[in-house]
Amino acid sequence: MEVVVDEEKIIMSNKKFRIVPLGGLGEVGKNMILYEYGDNILVVDTGIMFPENDMLGIDYILPDFNYLLEKRHLVRGIIITHGHEDHTGAIRHVMEEIQAPIYATSLTRGLLEVKLARGGMLNRTVLNTVKAGDQVQIGPFEVEFFHVCHSIPDGVGLGITTPAGLVVHSGDYKFDHTPVDGWPTDYAKLGEFSGRGVLALLADSTNADKPGWTPSERVIDPAFDQVFSKAEGRIIIASFASLISRMQQVVNAAQRHNRKVAFAGISMVENAKMAQKLGYLKIPEGLQVNIDTALKMNPAQVVLMSTGTQGEPSSILGRLSTGTNRQFDIIPGDTVVLSSHPIPGNEESIYRTINRMFRRGANVIYEPIAPVHVSGHASQEEMKLLIHLVKPKYFIPIHGELRHLKQHATIAQELGIAEENIAVIENGQVVEFENGNLSLGDRVPGGYVFVDGSRVGEVGPSVVREREALARDGIVVISLVLEKSSGRLIEEPEIITRGFIYKRDAKNLLADARNQITDTINRGNGNIQNDIEQSIRAFFYNETKRRPMVFVTINRL
Amino acid sequence: MEVVVDEEKIIMSNKKFRIVPLGGLGEVGKNMILYEYGDNILVVDTGIMFPENDMLGIDYILPDFNYLLEKRHLVRGIIITHGHEDHTGAIRHVMEEIQAPIYATSLTRGLLEVKLARGGMLNRTVLNTVKAGDQVQIGPFEVEFFHVCHSIPDGVGLGITTPAGLVVHSGDYKFDHTPVDGWPTDYAKLGEFSGRGVLALLADSTNADKPGWTPSERVIDPAFDQVFSKAEGRIIIASFASLISRMQQVVNAAQRHNRKVAFAGISMVENAKMAQKLGYLKIPEGLQVNIDTALKMNPAQVVLMSTGTQGEPSSILGRLSTGTNRQFDIIPGDTVVLSSHPIPGNEESIYRTINRMFRRGANVIYEPIAPVHVSGHASQEEMKLLIHLVKPKYFIPIHGELRHLKQHATIAQELGIAEENIAVIENGQVVEFENGNLSLGDRVPGGYVFVDGSRVGEVGPSVVREREALARDGIVVISLVLEKSSGRLIEEPEIITRGFIYKRDAKNLLADARNQITDTINRGNGNIQNDIEQSIRAFFYNETKRRPMVFVTINRL
Repeated sequence: MEVVVDEEKIIMSNKKFRIVPLGGLGEVGKNMILYEYGDNILVVDTGIMFPENDMLGIDYILPDFNYLLEKRHLVRGIIITHGHEDHTGAIRHVMEEIQAPIYATSLTRGLLEVKLARGGMLNRTVLNTVKAGDQVQIGPFEVEFFHVCHSIPDGVGLGITTPAGLVVHSGDYKFDHTPVDGWPTDYAKLGEFSGRGVLALLADSTNADKPGWTPSERVIDPAFDQVFSKAEGRIIIASFASLISRMQQVVNAAQRHNRKVAFAGISMVENAKMAQKLGYLKIPEGLQVNIDTALKMNPAQVVLMSTGTQGEPSSILGRLSTGTNRQFDIIPGDTVVLSSHPIPGNEESIYRTINRMFRRGANVIYEPIAPVHVSGHASQEEMKLLIHLVKPKYFIPIHGELRHLKQHATIAQELGIAEENIAVIENGQVVEFENGNLSLGDRVPGGYVFVDGSRVGEVGPSVVREREALARDGIVVISLVLEKSSGRLIEEPEIITRGFIYKRDAKNLLADARNQITDTINRGNGNIQNDIEQSIRAFFYNETKRRPMVFVTINRL
Repeated sequence: MEVVVDEEKIIMSNKKFRIVPLGGLGEVGKNMILYEYGDNILVVDTGIMFPENDMLGIDYILPDFNYLLEKRHLVRGIIITHGHEDHTGAIRHVMEEIQAPIYATSLTRGLLEVKLARGGMLNRTVLNTVKAGDQVQIGPFEVEFFHVCHSIPDGVGLGITTPAGLVVHSGDYKFDHTPVDGWPTDYAKLGEFSGRGVLALLADSTNADKPGWTPSERVIDPAFDQVFSKAEGRIIIASFASLISRMQQVVNAAQRHNRKVAFAGISMVENAKMAQKLGYLKIPEGLQVNIDTALKMNPAQVVLMSTGTQGEPSSILGRLSTGTNRQFDIIPGDTVVLSSHPIPGNEESIYRTINRMFRRGANVIYEPIAPVHVSGHASQEEMKLLIHLVKPKYFIPIHGELRHLKQHATIAQELGIAEENIAVIENGQVVEFENGNLSLGDRVPGGYVFVDGSRVGEVGPSVVREREALARDGIVVISLVLEKSSGRLIEEPEIITRGFIYKRDAKNLLADARNQITDTINRGNGNIQNDIEQSIRAFFYNETKRRPMVFVTINRL
């Protein structure tokens, strides 16, 4: 029953073949992974990460690809496996620096074009459309694209044949036997790879701690049917704008229950239009209405689809929950469905949004109340199937936090892959193959590049740490004017506080602080600014057990 | 099959009976709930809330009990249902203001005594020990304490008989048929209540969105057995310090697998000692060792128990994950078990802690990898059982966010309780009973009182909002010295930034800002301070798309 590898079939080469996942402590190789053979680099995916709760004020995060920039002339091509932000979001930043053709399937290409156009990069970029089953030579890499099911249509995994051997890259995948588009993952191709001998499998670890098999997208249909048949008013279904198959399921349910469908919000409308044009979303004639028409119709005859499942205050759902949406409001009797799963860290704001919608009279349906969402990633039994289908010599779990990779490695070991043939690596750790043998190479420098506002990379971890300190206990700004000759105070010290203390409670405290400052100045020896900062910090801590940031500005006249 | 109420048995009274849940938008009546009959108040629970992610720098939150303070002379007694922080944590703050006897079971009393002693309030407080089955007259309230299972031993629910009728208050509960202490919830008493006729049931809604029946604590034993038999090195089990029954399960597993047990951390050690003294934790002679001894023993022969399951950086587990624990470190081969469930909002820091421990060579076991934790709250089928046992005329879901209360209400309706006999209320909403009929009364003012450092209530929502603004884009402090007569600048403007921009990148930006300031002053009309703040805000936003807080201090000489 164990995975038995026919080592003879694995192609050998004495040129080094290297795999380099880039990014910080996030999910390994999720945003960008490099395949290097000799003087040739193939880039797979160019995604972004979303900031964690304590990365204050950060919009999004790029993988640090300075390593790649040093070798930019070696890049032979860029493959994007599917159209989600964590695989596409950095395309504009990458294409500003690197000249190489992009390869993507039709829907993925459509989504990339929107991003490139926004960044003014579309005309400067060579885009190649591929389809699952295609085989493309990119430098020394012979890439076979194979279809995988995921929560967006037209996703692919990659069989990458180099003189050093065949590597299989799963991409984000699940084994759905009844996907909405009727197109299952290409089991046969995976089996064919194993017949040829696979040097290494790199596989999606996202759900490595989930036992069993991820439910099929099909289970959502009966859940929608229940919601639609109970709902007496309007139905509002929220999901990700890229979840094209969920759009199709909403359209199908609307048709079964005699409701019209309207999409709300720019990204939802744009994606629906593009997916329709490319044939990934099929809407029967007359079923779709625009949002203005929908809002004038009998509530029992419409379903709206919008974004905002992650509790984002500026999304349509966020604005509906606070009564600040421009075009329409929650009306009592609305049924709101969150067809989504919380991204870890968002739970609190999602639940707050749900509570607010209940308070406005909506009935809100969400997991676990009804199975209105399924994951797009394989669970443990699917991971086992993939390993058995591919029979790799080496196994490299990717796309997950360290805890997921470790769990995925345990699963591979249970199937008989030897511990020494499994490489659990983090971003920046190079894996090298020589003569068909794996070893760990250098660690390339890397990490995060924060994007905040319009500028890239100007906000680093040190700025984020300052924001944390500001947020914890607020600030105190002290402005002093001293006589240059004597060092005496010319004016009463001015003290401004923010985020520290109620002003009306603070009168005595600030008066005491002013006395403390005057005393320190009068004692005055050496570095007055430093002395005041230290004594005022100690004073406020003693009085309030808080540690605001203290700034002292001194003007000497 | 439906709930049929024998209305004749419900005692009638023409004095008003009022129920008042206090607190902000948190879980309803979880931290404090008042029962008022005529000029008499019974307080049930005095708990705290923990801050949400965006309540920056807040340690904990008290329910606003100003309403109660106005009627402090009417308080006849304070009942604490069990020993968890969200029901006990405010006891010191309440007892500083109110003179009334406390009623609690033995273990709960022990935990309250620790808190009261720390606040210097123990000698000033009258504490009465009650046990499940007791009946105590507190003013006009005849209170019957009945045993409930929960994730801490010695929890009780309340049957409160007033001249207006009998009200059943579930407290935090589950129906565990095989609890660790062998003491199931008192089904018979609940049935007896229904025989007498119950005016209203107030019941725990925490898990109202969880289908089925919460697993028994007993399912943890085989999960622990698996972990213990696989672990070759040290085992470290993390849980809440108040989870006495989990301590017992760890002790039992250690005995079965020939390991010694040591408790790490003050709260864990103190609670274990107290629970042992009071008979709630049974440790066989010689099985427990102190932490110093444990650290010197063969790793295969010890299990340590500590706190830190919520990813708190300052907890033992948090410090172990970053290599900053004083007494001991993670050693490769350690097995770390998180016997706990993430409190919503903590997921990110918990997973970060887990990843860090993996990075240090530990194997980490957590939900969903193995069933090493169960909830202490009833799920949907248990909620149905409670309603059927008690057969209340009115149903008031408590202890949950609005989404849980709504779900609990739906469940009650499914059992036949009429919609108009169900009151879904939020904190501050008074419920009144007159002649056996429920109506909604006033809304009493309330909300949160933030506790930050040593002072109570000085940090309000406005201060927290300022901290948010500081955290988002940082600050810019501009200090100017102007000539009083002419309004001209005497010194070059000084600009300090924090959390806004890398200083080394900022040179040109700040030089431009200085010019902008000088221009504004030279144009100088009216309110210079205001003009500079506005023009500098606009300037920075144009240049960086960020909006730092801008402070201008002006000294005129």
